[in-house]
Amino acid sequence: MALDNTANGTIVVLNGPNLNLLGKRQPQIYGHDTLEDLEQQCAETASVHGFDMDFRQSNHEGVLIDAIHAVRESCSGLIINPGGFTHTSVALRDALVTVEAPVLEVHISNVHAREEFRHHSYISGIATGVICGLGTNGYLAAIEYLARVTRTA
Amino acid sequence: MALDNTANGTIVVLNGPNLNLLGKRQPQIYGHDTLEDLEQQCAETASVHGFDMDFRQSNHEGVLIDAIHAVRESCSGLIINPGGFTHTSVALRDALVTVEAPVLEVHISNVHAREEFRHHSYISGIATGVICGLGTNGYLAAIEYLARVTRTA
Amino acid sequence: MALDNTANGTIVVLNGPNLNLLGKRQPQIYGHDTLEDLEQQCAETASVHGFDMDFRQSNHEGVLIDAIHAVRESCSGLIINPGGFTHTSVALRDALVTVEAPVLEVHISNVHAREEFRHHSYISGIATGVICGLGTNGYLAAIEYLARVTRTA
Amino acid sequence: MALDNTANGTIVVLNGPNLNLLGKRQPQIYGHDTLEDLEQQCAETASVHGFDMDFRQSNHEGVLIDAIHAVRESCSGLIINPGGFTHTSVALRDALVTVEAPVLEVHISNVHAREEFRHHSYISGIATGVICGLGTNGYLAAIEYLARVTRTA
Amino acid sequence: MALDNTANGTIVVLNGPNLNLLGKRQPQIYGHDTLEDLEQQCAETASVHGFDMDFRQSNHEGVLIDAIHAVRESCSGLIINPGGFTHTSVALRDALVTVEAPVLEVHISNVHAREEFRHHSYISGIATGVICGLGTNGYLAAIEYLARVTRTA
Amino acid sequence: MALDNTANGTIVVLNGPNLNLLGKRQPQIYGHDTLEDLEQQCAETASVHGFDMDFRQSNHEGVLIDAIHAVRESCSGLIINPGGFTHTSVALRDALVTVEAPVLEVHISNVHAREEFRHHSYISGIATGVICGLGTNGYLAAIEYLARVTRTA
Amino acid sequence: MALDNTANGTIVVLNGPNLNLLGKRQPQIYGHDTLEDLEQQCAETASVHGFDMDFRQSNHEGVLIDAIHAVRESCSGLIINPGGFTHTSVALRDALVTVEAPVLEVHISNVHAREEFRHHSYISGIATGVICGLGTNGYLAAIEYLARVTRTA
Amino acid sequence: MALDNTANGTIVVLNGPNLNLLGKRQPQIYGHDTLEDLEQQCAETASVHGFDMDFRQSNHEGVLIDAIHAVRESCSGLIINPGGFTHTSVALRDALVTVEAPVLEVHISNVHAREEFRHHSYISGIATGVICGLGTNGYLAAIEYLARVTRTA
Amino acid sequence: MALDNTANGTIVVLNGPNLNLLGKRQPQIYGHDTLEDLEQQCAETASVHGFDMDFRQSNHEGVLIDAIHAVRESCSGLIINPGGFTHTSVALRDALVTVEAPVLEVHISNVHAREEFRHHSYISGIATGVICGLGTNGYLAAIEYLARVTRTA
Amino acid sequence: MALDNTANGTIVVLNGPNLNLLGKRQPQIYGHDTLEDLEQQCAETASVHGFDMDFRQSNHEGVLIDAIHAVRESCSGLIINPGGFTHTSVALRDALVTVEAPVLEVHISNVHAREEFRHHSYISGIATGVICGLGTNGYLAAIEYLARVTRTA
Amino acid sequence: MALDNTANGTIVVLNGPNLNLLGKRQPQIYGHDTLEDLEQQCAETASVHGFDMDFRQSNHEGVLIDAIHAVRESCSGLIINPGGFTHTSVALRDALVTVEAPVLEVHISNVHAREEFRHHSYISGIATGVICGLGTNGYLAAIEYLARVTRTA
Amino acid sequence: MALDNTANGTIVVLNGPNLNLLGKRQPQIYGHDTLEDLEQQCAETASVHGFDMDFRQSNHEGVLIDAIHAVRESCSGLIINPGGFTHTSVALRDALVTVEAPVLEVHISNVHAREEFRHHSYISGIATGVICGLGTNGYLAAIEYLARVTRTA
Repeated sequence: MALDNTANGTIVVLNGPNLNLLGKRQPQIYGHDTLEDLEQQCAETASVHGFDMDFRQSNHEGVLIDAIHAVRESCSGLIINPGGFTHTSVALRDALVTVEAPVLEVHISNVHAREEFRHHSYISGIATGVICGLGTNGYLAAIEYLARVTRTA
Repeated sequence: MALDNTANGTIVVLNGPNLNLLGKRQPQIYGHDTLEDLEQQCAETASVHGFDMDFRQSNHEGVLIDAIHAVRESCSGLIINPGGFTHTSVALRDALVTVEAPVLEVHISNVHAREEFRHHSYISGIATGVICGLGTNGYLAAIEYLARVTRTA
Repeated sequence: MALDNTANGTIVVLNGPNLNLLGKRQPQIYGHDTLEDLEQQCAETASVHGFDMDFRQSNHEGVLIDAIHAVRESCSGLIINPGGFTHTSVALRDALVTVEAPVLEVHISNVHAREEFRHHSYISGIATGVICGLGTNGYLAAIEYLARVTRTA
Repeated sequence: MALDNTANGTIVVLNGPNLNLLGKRQPQIYGHDTLEDLEQQCAETASVHGFDMDFRQSNHEGVLIDAIHAVRESCSGLIINPGGFTHTSVALRDALVTVEAPVLEVHISNVHAREEFRHHSYISGIATGVICGLGTNGYLAAIEYLARVTRTA
Repeated sequence: MALDNTANGTIVVLNGPNLNLLGKRQPQIYGHDTLEDLEQQCAETASVHGFDMDFRQSNHEGVLIDAIHAVRESCSGLIINPGGFTHTSVALRDALVTVEAPVLEVHISNVHAREEFRHHSYISGIATGVICGLGTNGYLAAIEYLARVTRTA
Repeated sequence: MALDNTANGTIVVLNGPNLNLLGKRQPQIYGHDTLEDLEQQCAETASVHGFDMDFRQSNHEGVLIDAIHAVRESCSGLIINPGGFTHTSVALRDALVTVEAPVLEVHISNVHAREEFRHHSYISGIATGVICGLGTNGYLAAIEYLARVTRTA
Repeated sequence: MALDNTANGTIVVLNGPNLNLLGKRQPQIYGHDTLEDLEQQCAETASVHGFDMDFRQSNHEGVLIDAIHAVRESCSGLIINPGGFTHTSVALRDALVTVEAPVLEVHISNVHAREEFRHHSYISGIATGVICGLGTNGYLAAIEYLARVTRTA
Repeated sequence: MALDNTANGTIVVLNGPNLNLLGKRQPQIYGHDTLEDLEQQCAETASVHGFDMDFRQSNHEGVLIDAIHAVRESCSGLIINPGGFTHTSVALRDALVTVEAPVLEVHISNVHAREEFRHHSYISGIATGVICGLGTNGYLAAIEYLARVTRTA
Repeated sequence: MALDNTANGTIVVLNGPNLNLLGKRQPQIYGHDTLEDLEQQCAETASVHGFDMDFRQSNHEGVLIDAIHAVRESCSGLIINPGGFTHTSVALRDALVTVEAPVLEVHISNVHAREEFRHHSYISGIATGVICGLGTNGYLAAIEYLARVTRTA
Repeated sequence: MALDNTANGTIVVLNGPNLNLLGKRQPQIYGHDTLEDLEQQCAETASVHGFDMDFRQSNHEGVLIDAIHAVRESCSGLIINPGGFTHTSVALRDALVTVEAPVLEVHISNVHAREEFRHHSYISGIATGVICGLGTNGYLAAIEYLARVTRTA
Repeated sequence: MALDNTANGTIVVLNGPNLNLLGKRQPQIYGHDTLEDLEQQCAETASVHGFDMDFRQSNHEGVLIDAIHAVRESCSGLIINPGGFTHTSVALRDALVTVEAPVLEVHISNVHAREEFRHHSYISGIATGVICGLGTNGYLAAIEYLARVTRTA
Repeated sequence: MALDNTANGTIVVLNGPNLNLLGKRQPQIYGHDTLEDLEQQCAETASVHGFDMDFRQSNHEGVLIDAIHAVRESCSGLIINPGGFTHTSVALRDALVTVEAPVLEVHISNVHAREEFRHHSYISGIATGVICGLGTNGYLAAIEYLARVTRTA
């Protein structure tokens, strides 16, 4: 187990389109925390478990794919909230399937309680696990999962 | 009502992929006016009704989303011709739903008279209104609609 | 261009079932203007552009078809709000396809934001264009479109 | 509660296409009572509960819609057997949704035990309740329901 | 067999919506014969085989149903071209199923070579037979069929 | 007709899963009467018409099937509100089809106005009749129907 | 018009699988005439109208395709009852589309009143016309149609 | 926050059919921990956060529904792994929707990476959140989520 | 091969809901043999081939699952007629997949000749084999199959 | 019962396309027995029960149909493994429905555990029974079934 | 690599139904080359790469299957244009899956730009590769592919 | 024909998302050649046939569309492997339809043998031809096709 805070490597958190508006739009769905708040919470939780945090957001599918390629062999775990790309991007799926570490799909809202088209995800089938509806706590649960499997590995 | 030409604020017109080719491809579907012609017509009509015009085109979904974010609280109305993204982009829908002013979806051709896959739009369900098949006149009708609702507001 | 108010011929506006209740039912969907208000607005707009107005409503599919047959060779444009027949009437479609002038389908509400069965129209595929969600302004936009294409024809 | 037989107002019973043939066709499905028999039974039951009866039949969708409009604000309850229009008429649904009193959909036969296309009703989703398969007794049950809710209102 | 021209009773021919335009619209689909031409050809063929002819057209579904009811017990055969109602009218089906004589569904054009929604008929399942694509000759074939089965009955 | 209150035999009323919570959950859907209230109303109505009442509820599909088997040859009528089993239980359908007396399916709420998956019932196709949306009055209407058909049998 | 009985050329009648059993199986569906009876009736009718008759049956799809190829440029009309191949053979469709004369699809029974899978035909979309449900008279109607169009050509 | 280990009330964990075999069947899907192991891990984690644990398993849908009813007003959170009932039980959904505390749906395996029929859940639409694919760690993440929202409530 | 009648171990036969009514309901579908007759026939056949017989029936899904768990490691073969659970129970499928011996699905009637919803089985995909339509002989065929594979194993 | 080995008449076994490769391809699906082995096993089993055996294979749909026609009135039972024609041949179904003796559909592999398109059979709906997944033993079970029903007839 | 023209073995080219008409029908779809022209081009290209050519065409599915069986173990590659069988023949798929050498599916036209039913192929899923829309050049590309993989094997 | 290596103009090869990982991920699907290897092979083949090569890759849909626009009037042929965009991008289709030279869609793997969602391509319907499953050889086949049609043009 890790002696210092980053001994377990880096957890990458990727946020897809419109998540830069977190806390600023539809708080009844997405809550009041901003993306900066979320990043801080994630970084703290990661640090507790000995991970570095690499936290990003983009509205560009290509930028997300490039980011996945850059870390796919090096990261200790990849947490992705693909936003609207969840339901439409085969390219993102194809990128994520090349990641060597566990991939966790996280949604802040419970997508199953929303429009029909949000019930299908191109990502879930190739992810290690999926967490939705837990608000921003879902990210923390994903980090803790990565910590648990790192400990038992 | 507006005393000068821009007193009613700015109307943003966003054009999606391939609309830069307007007037240069498939004129039997899209007509002979170029995007520059269209911009000029829109600017003139907007000016008549006291609006500024912010007219853009991009083939990049992420660029369109960024643009929507930039104006979502400030514009007086947003007119979007999402082109091929109409039928495939949940991310664009999620961005447009955060716009505070009316959002109008415009298509130059009558999409319902074309391929089956063009009959479904991810945007229409969250737009204020939809205009299709009126050629470039559809943009002008959208501007005039914004002028009417601004007058009666 | 027209020297007098009716030099451009007659625009026919047909309203389908339940539109006689306009302004009297579900104002959150259809607004507060009555059909008489709408007729007056249409007549004024038509007059400005040199058109006569022939404005009707019926709850009977057969009456609408008969009306289309009566004007199909003579009118300068036909604007139809087929109401509930939009989604169920092939007979209306077959009648409208015989109209020589442009046919514009107008819906007061945004049908795409309502029940699933309202997302399909038998009319759209053979109309020149479709306008929905602009409230009663949609009729005026249709008249102005007819004026524009008459001018440029 | 009603002191005289019509103190509770009028119940309107509308019968759709082909119900004028009741008792004359397919008795294995529809029984042997004629429409006149049914009207008498309904009138008697209504009278017992202090209601007037307005009982009509038409093979014309438009006539049914006009009839609904005529009583939509005044009747104490509307019972409709839409016959074949059940499965095909959005216009009838749109008319019925404007009725202020309870709307009860009644079918003499059990439509769920017949052809697949009879399993979907455009009316059920906006009716207060649905009764099918009870033969002409279904109408009486509907009247008694209206009597009960009137008493407890 | 018939000694005089009407000894075999009456054949009823019902034409649905838009067939009054026969010969006047889309001749590439429907040919150049008018409805009057067709009526004359049918009457002549019927007469040859000892039948009276009752030939009607209406754009009103209710009028067609009323007409079916009026002849359902008395006619020697019923030929119907339901036009656009073919694909949408359960009420017409329910009326036709009560006709005691053979019912023949006729379409001038080959509906199977046109839009997908024209491939399903609510009438075919309860008709004796179906003829399509033979142009106006389809009506004559239907009359001759009725003559043949009358002879062999 | 019955000389004493139970001369017409026993009506069995079966209530499926979650109906024990009646009056305690979602009153906007199911009303305020408890299952005990409902039992008392049913027993009184049955008694008026000369029937005994056997009223049960279970959350166990197997218990309901066993109960049906126990009464399938002896009861005078079976009223079932299958709750959530309506949409998922072929086994219940297979049990009910063996009941010799009329089987009435009752739903307190209008299932057609709720989620899509509640629009299909495995029971309706083999029931004598179906009543929904009348609240707890639906049970009483079912009992009265059984009384009517017993009288006329 | 033809001076002698074969001046109008040859009509080819192709019968698909199981039609050799005509008159020997399921007479309630297919009637009592045998294939030999049918051939004789067809030959007589053809002769009356000045056509030769080439009448065949095969249970082998390939044999039917070969037969179509052999006559596709020379026959005056091709009548095919594809039997069970109607619903499953794209290869037969592809062969028939190369025939220069009119192609008529005939079914003895009304396929639309039978199993769901018989409601779709791969042949109808490329045939000149379709006749079904007229029993063996359907073949004669097809021959008479060919005679009529030959006369008017 | 809790001063003693059970100050936050009781978390109920319900395990559906076949979960009693955990650790004994298909370890490549479900892992090697037994249900007893899982119960112990859950109890420990709950205790850390000041919750009592009520941990059950049943292969009987009715037993699970009864259990939900028993705790629906008193528990601090309900975690359910509905096993095969996930995809087939409306009754379970209807029971869970009455629970006042948060309901978390947990699956040990990633159901989205398995058979198509496992991709739809009747539970997800009414759960607070869903966790799948994290192995038995998913239960612990659910408990920690309940702890977090209890702290912040 | 077996020296005595039970040397080959035990064959478990599980009968699902409503099979206790065998011989008492719908004999045109299920025949006249009772479940007791069937048990005796099975036991005799099993004995001939050196197997013990464990023959059960339940209307409770949970009881069937419990029974499967109890024998899943010990039985020599499991024959199940899941009745109505065939088409609706994922839980039963999940239990059966853990059985180490061959699992045979048997239906007395030919389910493929009945309602559409009986054409899909959740069990078939994970069974060794499926037998339907052979009446109660299907059970005997299943036992004989188990005898054959035991001999050749 | 039969005194000599062929007193019960002839059982016909028809094998469809690719079954000539039995034992030579995909043994993990179809086993190691060749078609000759299978024929011998069938002949022996038939002989034991007093039947002659007529065992054939063809890759030609037409040859199979011809063979069915040849024996449809004379055979004592027909066992068919239609191979790939199972899922595509209406013609084969139409031929088999004319067979007077019982028709048994047999598949060596469990088709329900293979590709989706193998889950539907055009034959099952008109067969007496269906056996799949028992390997070549399925043929023997079918023969024994025919023996049993012959004995009890 | 091959020293002489046939050292690499034989490439089998199978052409399905209607391809004997190549160059004689629908040249806008299939071009002007005849099957003989195509055979010559294939033979020349094969020869260049050291292969023998076995080039056949049949309108009989069974003949194609027999041909595949004959060469399935001996050929160096199999190129098949299944014509209309592409979309309907499971039997052909089952035959092709037994071929040991690479199987290439070739279509002269771009089937994806034609009717909807041509978009699905039963062959593609088990072929090595698919080439369509390249006209007769597609065959040559397939031969060259076989040459390349032979060289690198 | 070309005298020098670039006399036939430029062939553009566009590679979509994740193809930069070629040779580095899932070699069992995509093989061991890297994108650089592929570029070199393409350039060599192009050069042999007198073409320049413009070879690019991007994970950004917008970048690919911009690239298509840049060359749509000037290139001699466009080869595109759209990767995951194949199944989701209408925008890419709309861009490609404006290219004046032939467009060839190439996939390294056989997409028809993979997940269901990979069986539909938005590109194929407007491409000249499609090649899949030939590995990187598919690109070379596409270049050679362009060479052939250039020679014969």
